[in-house]
Amino acid sequence: MNKRSIGIIGGGSWATALCKIIFDSGRDFSLTWYFRNEEDIDHLKKHRHNKKYLSSIEIRTEKIQFTSNINELIKNSEILILAIPAAFIEETFSTIDSNISDKFIISGVKGMIPNRNQIVGDYLHTAFQIPIHHIAILTGPCHAEEIALERLSYLTLASENKEFAKQTQALFQTHYCKINISDDIYGTEYAAVLKNLYAIASGISHGLAYGDNFQAVLISNAIREINNFVHVVHPIQRDIKSSAYLGDLLVTAYSKFSRNRIFGNMIGKGYSVKSALLEMNMIPEGYYALKSIYEMCAQKNITLPIIQSLNRIINESKPPAEEIKHLTTRLN
Amino acid sequence: MNKRSIGIIGGGSWATALCKIIFDSGRDFSLTWYFRNEEDIDHLKKHRHNKKYLSSIEIRTEKIQFTSNINELIKNSEILILAIPAAFIEETFSTIDSNISDKFIISGVKGMIPNRNQIVGDYLHTAFQIPIHHIAILTGPCHAEEIALERLSYLTLASENKEFAKQTQALFQTHYCKINISDDIYGTEYAAVLKNLYAIASGISHGLAYGDNFQAVLISNAIREINNFVHVVHPIQRDIKSSAYLGDLLVTAYSKFSRNRIFGNMIGKGYSVKSALLEMNMIPEGYYALKSIYEMCAQKNITLPIIQSLNRIINESKPPAEEIKHLTTRLN
Repeated sequence: MNKRSIGIIGGGSWATALCKIIFDSGRDFSLTWYFRNEEDIDHLKKHRHNKKYLSSIEIRTEKIQFTSNINELIKNSEILILAIPAAFIEETFSTIDSNISDKFIISGVKGMIPNRNQIVGDYLHTAFQIPIHHIAILTGPCHAEEIALERLSYLTLASENKEFAKQTQALFQTHYCKINISDDIYGTEYAAVLKNLYAIASGISHGLAYGDNFQAVLISNAIREINNFVHVVHPIQRDIKSSAYLGDLLVTAYSKFSRNRIFGNMIGKGYSVKSALLEMNMIPEGYYALKSIYEMCAQKNITLPIIQSLNRIINESKPPAEEIKHLTTRLN
Repeated sequence: MNKRSIGIIGGGSWATALCKIIFDSGRDFSLTWYFRNEEDIDHLKKHRHNKKYLSSIEIRTEKIQFTSNINELIKNSEILILAIPAAFIEETFSTIDSNISDKFIISGVKGMIPNRNQIVGDYLHTAFQIPIHHIAILTGPCHAEEIALERLSYLTLASENKEFAKQTQALFQTHYCKINISDDIYGTEYAAVLKNLYAIASGISHGLAYGDNFQAVLISNAIREINNFVHVVHPIQRDIKSSAYLGDLLVTAYSKFSRNRIFGNMIGKGYSVKSALLEMNMIPEGYYALKSIYEMCAQKNITLPIIQSLNRIINESKPPAEEIKHLTTRLN
């Protein structure tokens, strides 16, 4: 890969992990990093560590141009790496004042654009005329925390543009990070969104004192639901048992640190949705994505029992215990 | 189901859980229960609890005829429920002095008959002329401990005899136990054996400080290996993502209580195989099964990277760290 100009959008743990990875890949590039607020930038410049996320990672600040102006980042960067919550994408992109249809995008976002029922790749393509062959999806299984510890992880990079995928693969390949390449940009992205919903369901059932035997059944049904969904939405040949689909589901649904699972657990233990969200002081991606996925299922006639139960619990305030009990009759 | 005579062979936690289940199913039957030694029987009769396993379960001893004589059990029982380690089956069955080819068998064993490279159903069919349509395989995902707690579990009962499967389903159906029916007696039994090997591999990598990201990749590769194996050994239509295959793998590989995973973890931490076995004071099923599965793979030309690495570590004393490192280049 030639020297390329890269811009990272987002200041959270995933953005911080990706920054570490691309430096560790040893490639040559220039980097601009966008944060929403100046304070975080000041802290980073002064201390060489992100204040709030993965603060053990030392950031090579001397090699980075920081900005809280998205247009400055756009001007500087051929390749944009997105790592912000899906809920903030529209807002962030609304202030862009130039044509970005020639940019390349690597999206590490795992959510739906609210009120649009669109995954990020789809949104960027339709709203900003970014060609599909300029888009790549970067997906797990990956806890950012384990990147900080340099624990071996396999990411998947999906793009319909093989050349772009290969160049980008080199940018993320390190001794602790292996990159699988895929051409399934829709399937990998939807799977990354869906897994958060199943992590919520897993948390709810755990909160209701269902055990590991049930959890295994729930996840085994979940991967079949994911398979059904992506098959309808984008019917290409894929092996849903691959790391990008099943692996990503496992790392999230079995993690005690997943925000989505924690959120679900609180619901299962009797918190209302509102109070669980307040208590957590952050919004789990799955909470937003649920409505979009549920509506897409209704529209496309896809019957996913776990998603249906989840929607009744989260969006219709139905009692979790009853709903999960009903769900158990629909699983196998 | 009419009143039937049932014999349980085995005194461990799975046998104890199955005893609880069939009483809780509310069916009418007579029960004989075989233990290897009289002491355990005496304790059970006196205290109504199994001394060593799932001792919280109250056993309705007044409804059970106990015996340490396998021939007495055989005489009493039309249906034999097997729940002993695979390594003890040949020895136990070698003392049977009558023809048992008219018996029905429900096997809950998850291992291979040592030195025969045979799963239990296969062995009973070839060594005792028990017809295939008299055999059912009972498989998880199921920690017996959660049966004691009456936590919802889904078992799978596989038989090529639909009538027998249905009758037997009724015998195990309780408010906390749902029974899926399958016709895949070979696939479910091999999957139940294989999952223990992957639990050992999972334990080894955990012991070597690989993290959750890698674990998810390992398991996602494991289910593909299981799929390849059972497809070669018994190529029928099946969904490997079902609870009996994927679910069973998950509950074992993600469990901190799995003996196989604990054994692997010790190997990863530097114990020799011998000292790990000594320290555990029990033999994990996967340890025995590994040799058989490895030999079958060689014989049938099935390439399973995880099984190959595992065999080198466990049976050829190769250093775990190097072997797993090599393995990481073969996964995706």
